[in-house]
Amino acid sequence: MMGSGVFTGIFKEEDIHAKTDRDGVAFADALKRIGYAGAAPCGGRKVGAFFECHIEQGPILEAEGKTIGVVTGGQAQRWYEVNLVGQESHAGTTPMERRRDALLGAARIVDMVNHIGITHLPSARATCGVIEAKPQSRNTVPGRVFLTVEFRHPDETELATMDKTFRAQAARIAGEIGLELDIQEIWHFPATPFSADCIAAVRDAAKARGYSHRDIISGAGHDALYMARVAPTAMIFVPCADGISHNEIEAAAPDDLAAGCQILLDAMLRRANAPV
Amino acid sequence: MMGSGVFTGIFKEEDIHAKTDRDGVAFADALKRIGYAGAAPCGGRKVGAFFECHIEQGPILEAEGKTIGVVTGGQAQRWYEVNLVGQESHAGTTPMERRRDALLGAARIVDMVNHIGITHLPSARATCGVIEAKPQSRNTVPGRVFLTVEFRHPDETELATMDKTFRAQAARIAGEIGLELDIQEIWHFPATPFSADCIAAVRDAAKARGYSHRDIISGAGHDALYMARVAPTAMIFVPCADGISHNEIEAAAPDDLAAGCQILLDAMLRRANAPV
Repeated sequence: MMGSGVFTGIFKEEDIHAKTDRDGVAFADALKRIGYAGAAPCGGRKVGAFFECHIEQGPILEAEGKTIGVVTGGQAQRWYEVNLVGQESHAGTTPMERRRDALLGAARIVDMVNHIGITHLPSARATCGVIEAKPQSRNTVPGRVFLTVEFRHPDETELATMDKTFRAQAARIAGEIGLELDIQEIWHFPATPFSADCIAAVRDAAKARGYSHRDIISGAGHDALYMARVAPTAMIFVPCADGISHNEIEAAAPDDLAAGCQILLDAMLRRANAPV
Repeated sequence: MMGSGVFTGIFKEEDIHAKTDRDGVAFADALKRIGYAGAAPCGGRKVGAFFECHIEQGPILEAEGKTIGVVTGGQAQRWYEVNLVGQESHAGTTPMERRRDALLGAARIVDMVNHIGITHLPSARATCGVIEAKPQSRNTVPGRVFLTVEFRHPDETELATMDKTFRAQAARIAGEIGLELDIQEIWHFPATPFSADCIAAVRDAAKARGYSHRDIISGAGHDALYMARVAPTAMIFVPCADGISHNEIEAAAPDDLAAGCQILLDAMLRRANAPV
């Protein structure tokens, strides 16, 4: 999404050009090497509408036997880093009631975060992805834990409620175990509702072609989420096997991909031919 | 405990001599270098009784204002390695109800292990010390977790109950989330009750000197736990600050250390002078 970020003015071109990969190669140099560093300016011109077709990267369409996902927008996201500090102590000599076990606190936060996701179904996502405990010794009560938390929801109000519950419950858990708690919100990506006209163009095209379809929210990031800030936008999803993506076993059926391309074309034509 | 392990026939001398540190230096060579590789055979001779004095390495004596811990034995220990396998998946696109989150399973096991410790108070210890989640990505539902678990209790029957509850509850948790569960018991150290006569010698000596005292179980490992297999054995604990040990801030008051040494001498004399 670096390209769409520059195109839409969210990132500066020079900042993105200067980014390096793990081998230290700058993005600008890699673009030149593969012949992609064109002369045209990135962005700065008007776009009538933007449509993007993508595999769902999730299991919903496949599970429901639907061919086309009519994407109505992108979720809002809040990402956090949580640090818990207790007291490192000997696992054999420290009585249960005298422990300040940072991993126990983290464990209860992981369960609580999952519970917040479940109580905001069907659209909410709640995930703890990274955990690091210290000192990582079998017979030592962990004194410190670092944990990442993220929440996603298409509705900012719901997401704010999840945030509030999370902070209150984490404070309660830390207090019960005698842990110091620090929560930093490191990223807040706003909810991105797509254009009603563009969404209708996708839905009507799917109907006209007789494809089974359903409205769906994009859980992942896409260029369309940036483009939606500068142009009427919508997306088309097609099913993928087991919802797996960014992985060698990612797979989508040729018929589904063909259907997605057809609806992409149809929706663009509908939009282009619509009375202004 | 390598020396006492060889002395009591638990380890082979050549195996211990061959052990290397992180720099690759063999134990036998290090012994020679510091002049500790004596000519006398290690073990193989009769020991009338064994007494050992040590800081408690826990917070009980300090919290209760007691000078002498009359150690009645060592806890039994069971150590486990737990592997949980779920399904790595995208945190944004995978609905809560379709996840197989290995970290969620590990979190519930950590809380459950702690609960087992609490329901077997005051003597039980239950600890998860090491946790490793994969792939350690903020926006990926963890697919795999490695977790260490250990239980300690002075009573083997109680420890067996803890083991049984742990296995049943872990299986229930894994089943609820759809995780594969593997539990390996990697170590089982038996409970070590000390000699009633030697314990009485310590307790009577503390009484005679007018030191405040209480019976206590050793949560940590000590040479005395191996020596107890070949000779009547007991231990004396003295308080240490905040229960901290194996750490630069470990501290014990000179008066307490002197009291411990006095009771060590008194108990040995009582034992030596006791009618056989």
